Amino acid sequence: MSPARLIGVGVGPGDPELVTLKALRALAEADVVAHFAKAGHPSHGRAIVAHHLRAGIQELPLLYPVTTEHPKDAPCYRDAIRTFYDDAAATIARHLDAGRTVAVIAEGDPLFYGSYMHLHVRLSPHYPTEIVAGVTGMSGCWSAAGAPIAQGDDVFTVVPATLSEDELARRLGQTQAAVVMKLGRHLAKVRRALERTGRLERAIYVERGTMTDSEMMRLAEKKDDTAPYFALVLVPGWETP
Amino acid sequence: MSPARLIGVGVGPGDPELVTLKALRALAEADVVAHFAKAGHPSHGRAIVAHHLRAGIQELPLLYPVTTEHPKDAPCYRDAIRTFYDDAAATIARHLDAGRTVAVIAEGDPLFYGSYMHLHVRLSPHYPTEIVAGVTGMSGCWSAAGAPIAQGDDVFTVVPATLSEDELARRLGQTQAAVVMKLGRHLAKVRRALERTGRLERAIYVERGTMTDSEMMRLAEKKDDTAPYFALVLVPGWETP
Repeated sequence: MSPARLIGVGVGPGDPELVTLKALRALAEADVVAHFAKAGHPSHGRAIVAHHLRAGIQELPLLYPVTTEHPKDAPCYRDAIRTFYDDAAATIARHLDAGRTVAVIAEGDPLFYGSYMHLHVRLSPHYPTEIVAGVTGMSGCWSAAGAPIAQGDDVFTVVPATLSEDELARRLGQTQAAVVMKLGRHLAKVRRALERTGRLERAIYVERGTMTDSEMMRLAEKKDDTAPYFALVLVPGWETP
Repeated sequence: MSPARLIGVGVGPGDPELVTLKALRALAEADVVAHFAKAGHPSHGRAIVAHHLRAGIQELPLLYPVTTEHPKDAPCYRDAIRTFYDDAAATIARHLDAGRTVAVIAEGDPLFYGSYMHLHVRLSPHYPTEIVAGVTGMSGCWSAAGAPIAQGDDVFTVVPATLSEDELARRLGQTQAAVVMKLGRHLAKVRRALERTGRLERAIYVERGTMTDSEMMRLAEKKDDTAPYFALVLVPGWETP
């Protein structure tokens, strides 16, 4: 019998078919399945694998006290979120101490911009830990768009839209391929930075990439600058030969 | 009945369990399954899903005439490889014209530095095409290493080791998280570039990331500078809070 362990389980970008066999096995073998959600809302990660969870499995909802209501460097946000992760890690540690294997559902890939990472750094030094890699949200988006993103000796860069316009323009000007993430209220600025670097024509806007109601279009053709937080802009690098 | 179509099927980084349900369905429903290999060698991509291929499925091996024997900008290499992709696309087109759906096995993710992309750009303008996103090789590597790669507002950059030392140092100095790929004979140079930017201590060397015989270690502790072409160096960006 393998000892109780923590497993970060990547469940992919949203399409329930983009879950791996390894993720399903981890969920089937776990004693406890933990998942993140905003308090009062269903868990997006859990929804992806809901029909694979065995009846009666012990679930551990981890409910963010805050998400995007506050700027992320505001002390009130930082304190609330740190306490949340500390408490979540302590709860999971009690299950591990009791000999129970805990699978934490992670949207996309567990170690690529994911909430699971906050538990990983708190628990992996003390408990056996395993990671089940997942299909990232951005892979889901460029696949849905059918956009060859990077090839050969392309440099590929992921930049958060929160950077300044100058910084965005500088970075977009130096990379062949790019993904701009966390668009939200930053889309107008991202559009200007892409225009300055001559990349606007190639840019593709993707909203809810692998959901059935996904929306995608050339950014140059998008009429407004409203975007949800998790929308992406793809800048394919590869020039078709 | 859906019309004959081309499907780029990501089968993940090598672990047969890191294949998605969607990839398995695409392979099960295809009339023809195509896979790349070096002439005279078995196909790595096919091996990942070999025991899921149905008996008697029509297979189409696509055999690279050359791989790394020649510098990739040498005319003899460029001509041979272009002719190879032209011929492969023409063969697949004949199957599509005859009403057969063709699934092309792609290691990792089909549109992220993959050979499938060369077929995609030739065929997708003319035939219905679908992409099944896959777990990338680099996700497989940082998951195997348990290394949280990027978080929050980190900039994440993938750089080929083929860049000059100065160019590598400049790019590594400007990003929080990085993956250096295509190491091969470039490892000594990559090591120097990491040292110059103060990142060597954080760098992790990974060989055959999700294979059973994978090797990983802190790059600073690796005694020699020999590395296979597909080895990676991971530079985790996130400073644990």
